[in-house]
Amino acid sequence: MDRIETKLVFGGEQRRYQHDAATTQCRMTFSVYLPPQVAERKVPVLYWLSGLTCTDENFSTKAGAQRVAAQLGMALVMPDTSPRGEGVPDDPEGAYDFGLGAGFYLNATQAPWSTHYRMYDYVVEELPALVESTLPLDGRRAIAGHSMGGHGALMIALRNPDRYISTSAFSPIVNPAGVPWGRKALGRYLGEDPAAWAAYDTVALVQQTEHHLPLLVDQGTADQFLEEQLKTDRLEAACESSGYPAMIRMHGGYDHSYYFIASFIEDHLRFHYAAITAGQTPPD
Amino acid sequence: MDRIETKLVFGGEQRRYQHDAATTQCRMTFSVYLPPQVAERKVPVLYWLSGLTCTDENFSTKAGAQRVAAQLGMALVMPDTSPRGEGVPDDPEGAYDFGLGAGFYLNATQAPWSTHYRMYDYVVEELPALVESTLPLDGRRAIAGHSMGGHGALMIALRNPDRYISTSAFSPIVNPAGVPWGRKALGRYLGEDPAAWAAYDTVALVQQTEHHLPLLVDQGTADQFLEEQLKTDRLEAACESSGYPAMIRMHGGYDHSYYFIASFIEDHLRFHYAAITAGQTPPD
Repeated sequence: MDRIETKLVFGGEQRRYQHDAATTQCRMTFSVYLPPQVAERKVPVLYWLSGLTCTDENFSTKAGAQRVAAQLGMALVMPDTSPRGEGVPDDPEGAYDFGLGAGFYLNATQAPWSTHYRMYDYVVEELPALVESTLPLDGRRAIAGHSMGGHGALMIALRNPDRYISTSAFSPIVNPAGVPWGRKALGRYLGEDPAAWAAYDTVALVQQTEHHLPLLVDQGTADQFLEEQLKTDRLEAACESSGYPAMIRMHGGYDHSYYFIASFIEDHLRFHYAAITAGQTPPD
Repeated sequence: MDRIETKLVFGGEQRRYQHDAATTQCRMTFSVYLPPQVAERKVPVLYWLSGLTCTDENFSTKAGAQRVAAQLGMALVMPDTSPRGEGVPDDPEGAYDFGLGAGFYLNATQAPWSTHYRMYDYVVEELPALVESTLPLDGRRAIAGHSMGGHGALMIALRNPDRYISTSAFSPIVNPAGVPWGRKALGRYLGEDPAAWAAYDTVALVQQTEHHLPLLVDQGTADQFLEEQLKTDRLEAACESSGYPAMIRMHGGYDHSYYFIASFIEDHLRFHYAAITAGQTPPD
């Protein structure tokens, strides 16, 4: 992997890398924050998945997470939200909610998407294998995200409880199989048979798993997407009926923006740090 | 003034306003952060002046200042960096360092700039009169900024010690009369006679004033503009020779970006808060 940028932040290093990814068959860019503690030891890592239209840079420039990561001694790894580059197909109408910037963290099965749109394998396998063998990370992982990335983080953690210690999300799409954003994306990437969608649906997954990873969700009540696309109440109901002890918090007056994330990101980092240091050992 | 946006951040409100400005003779946009304490009392305010190419939004989205402002109970007011809109002339070559986004916080005297480029009067007089008569601000002011805005903040405070309690800057242009960015801008806005430039030059002003406002400067040693444009050493020398007790801090490895600002903005807010609450009374 090639380092293309290094900036000092809160005593640690904010870096950007590029590499040729085998899963997505294109050149991928990602960002990393290494806290000052890496001078002395390997550290655990929080993977952050961003939302529709974002790149690896939205979280690193707007969330203010490095301050807390530097206090705790946690690294942050921020992948892009889709494959990109020449030959990677985009939404035919250039819509913001499908194609480039909208990979939905799944493995597409339908042409022409299935060649490059393999963000699930990229985030779960290829990227951790790369960064954890190259950077001073100790193998303890948590995963979080926002909106489409909140969907990705919860879904990936629920499907891989052996790989992640904890998961959290801001304003996640919890039930993509049941809302317009998700139905459009899942229908095109996976085909129109909804049977294939359940493996990427947090509301479905949370009712099937026996592994209760620590799970935190923050949602603003003034979020313009809450009613039609996010439907936090469906996750609350699914957790209640299945006995999953999720922590789901509604915050009066907050919207879908990074101002909301910035306001509560410290809680999320401390939530993951507490889970990571609660006697868990590295997964491998 | 018309409010065009409101977002909840750290329990307070991030707002954007537009108004027709008499000084710059155009429609101006600015941002305000009101901390949660305004529900109970009026609060002091920190004016923040941004750098070349910025708008009122760079600081509000990237610096993470609202977290500390909400703790302390300080408002933030963030003006734009130049006049804008139809009829406002720009650099003939569209350069980033003159014209739109590059008002240098002065009152231009030369055609065609003198009609609209009156950011000094806008920041010192018109904007405070507007916001302090409309919003829950108690009249106690500090002023800070970055790069071109660091020049603006220090210069404005040194010229108006009765109006500001304290001043600070990240990576400021301390000697515009003696560096390429400043010589280009001052020459065009004020005319080629350097005698007119000294009133806008911090290195000159700091040697003339008898009022020693608390003054803090943070500068990164890896700043790509340090050697040619910023020349912090000239401010250090001027303060030393004139006995101005400035606090000038060099930070190893930090660059010119908002990552540097985010890393130390808490120090600046606490510096201003300490000055404001050190027995000072509102100026009017």
